[in-house]
Amino acid sequence: MDLSKISTKPPKGLDKDKIKKETAKLAKRIAEKQQLIYAEGKKAVLIVFQGMDSSGKDGATRKVFKYCSPSGIRAHAFKKPTDLEFAHDFLWRAHKLAPSKGQFVIYNRSHYEDILIQRVHKWIDKDRVNTRIDAINAYERLLMEDNNTTILKFYMHISKERQLEKLQERKDDPAKNWKHNDGDWEQREHWDEYMRCYEDAIDRCNAAPWIIAPVDSRWYRDYFIASKVMDALDKLEVTLPTLSKDSK
Amino acid sequence: MDLSKISTKPPKGLDKDKIKKETAKLAKRIAEKQQLIYAEGKKAVLIVFQGMDSSGKDGATRKVFKYCSPSGIRAHAFKKPTDLEFAHDFLWRAHKLAPSKGQFVIYNRSHYEDILIQRVHKWIDKDRVNTRIDAINAYERLLMEDNNTTILKFYMHISKERQLEKLQERKDDPAKNWKHNDGDWEQREHWDEYMRCYEDAIDRCNAAPWIIAPVDSRWYRDYFIASKVMDALDKLEVTLPTLSKDSK
Repeated sequence: MDLSKISTKPPKGLDKDKIKKETAKLAKRIAEKQQLIYAEGKKAVLIVFQGMDSSGKDGATRKVFKYCSPSGIRAHAFKKPTDLEFAHDFLWRAHKLAPSKGQFVIYNRSHYEDILIQRVHKWIDKDRVNTRIDAINAYERLLMEDNNTTILKFYMHISKERQLEKLQERKDDPAKNWKHNDGDWEQREHWDEYMRCYEDAIDRCNAAPWIIAPVDSRWYRDYFIASKVMDALDKLEVTLPTLSKDSK
Repeated sequence: MDLSKISTKPPKGLDKDKIKKETAKLAKRIAEKQQLIYAEGKKAVLIVFQGMDSSGKDGATRKVFKYCSPSGIRAHAFKKPTDLEFAHDFLWRAHKLAPSKGQFVIYNRSHYEDILIQRVHKWIDKDRVNTRIDAINAYERLLMEDNNTTILKFYMHISKERQLEKLQERKDDPAKNWKHNDGDWEQREHWDEYMRCYEDAIDRCNAAPWIIAPVDSRWYRDYFIASKVMDALDKLEVTLPTLSKDSK
């Protein structure tokens, strides 16, 4: 896995307006399928958004799942662990939030932070990284094999230049000031090390598949992710419960 | 592992009164060490009691940990899963209850039920059993390697004859009627199949060690378990935080 070889940009020749309309259609189809999965109550769906700051995890959540009912979908932003979370193994907080049957859950950042930021800053040693990679594979396998969970992990692939523009926007545009965080600029200084850790995570945490999403352009990002989500949902056959002969 | 080859009874020649005094001493030492681990806040301890009905899981909890402060120890009885628990992978409810650093947790029954009662009654197939055994080993490894957890798993080894006496007591003694449960008598009919599933669980779920506790006699059961707990705690070196030079 060499992320520098993979484009962060939309393919050439696409019609932006057409694509946006397609995305809206896909978002509606996703919501319809989500409602069916909710009604059936037998399958769980876990979407993981991992990427550098400003890679559009929040934006994609909003655009792709905007028509879904909150009854059947929850999004969790993983922040710095609390004291109680730090007092447990790194998967504890993620596992608690895993989707139940019939539910979609979005991890906005995730258990992968524990082998990314923690590894980049050398807060954990190599043995710990290996232990955690094994644990992540076992965890994802557990959700898939023991709870009928479809897992889609998106690496939000943004270029270093595009991140700079977006971080700068947050400083320049008063409406976006709320998103500004000094810490994002500090993490940016470790860009190359982050890329190496992402590549390793993508290579080795392969119990559930990764999808590399080119996110430099928002309109293509949303379309790309919505397509991949819909592709996966199309594979799920839903059978709604029917009334039995004895029903009153 | 052939449980029928392992005695459920105390070794011969022991002085019951002496042993009881020893148990009380051990229980006090356990509480002292538990208080230190609580104060240090760096290590977790997980005790698992698994065994047939009336094998003394509650009794051992009461006797061995009676001097421990509730601030630092919690016991959870695993009952039939709730609807919400059934809507998740089998480890979900156990993981939520895992001890934080500084804490002791007792699982009275545990995630092992999911490869015992469910297997005996063929509610899950062989593949699912294998998946779950892998998941259990990964889970226990995670707690040990990522959260500094000492895990002690006790199989409460009772004879079929002794169980009959104890179940009958629950019917005959009004003070014990509250413990009676028709289901226990039904499970007893599957005794041999339970033994085979226990043997397999003990053999294959070996990331953390099992201890076979002979529990036909309460007085020896408590002594045996308290000794094993204390042996494990003795190996934990506790360093209490001290004041730094800059402390006010």
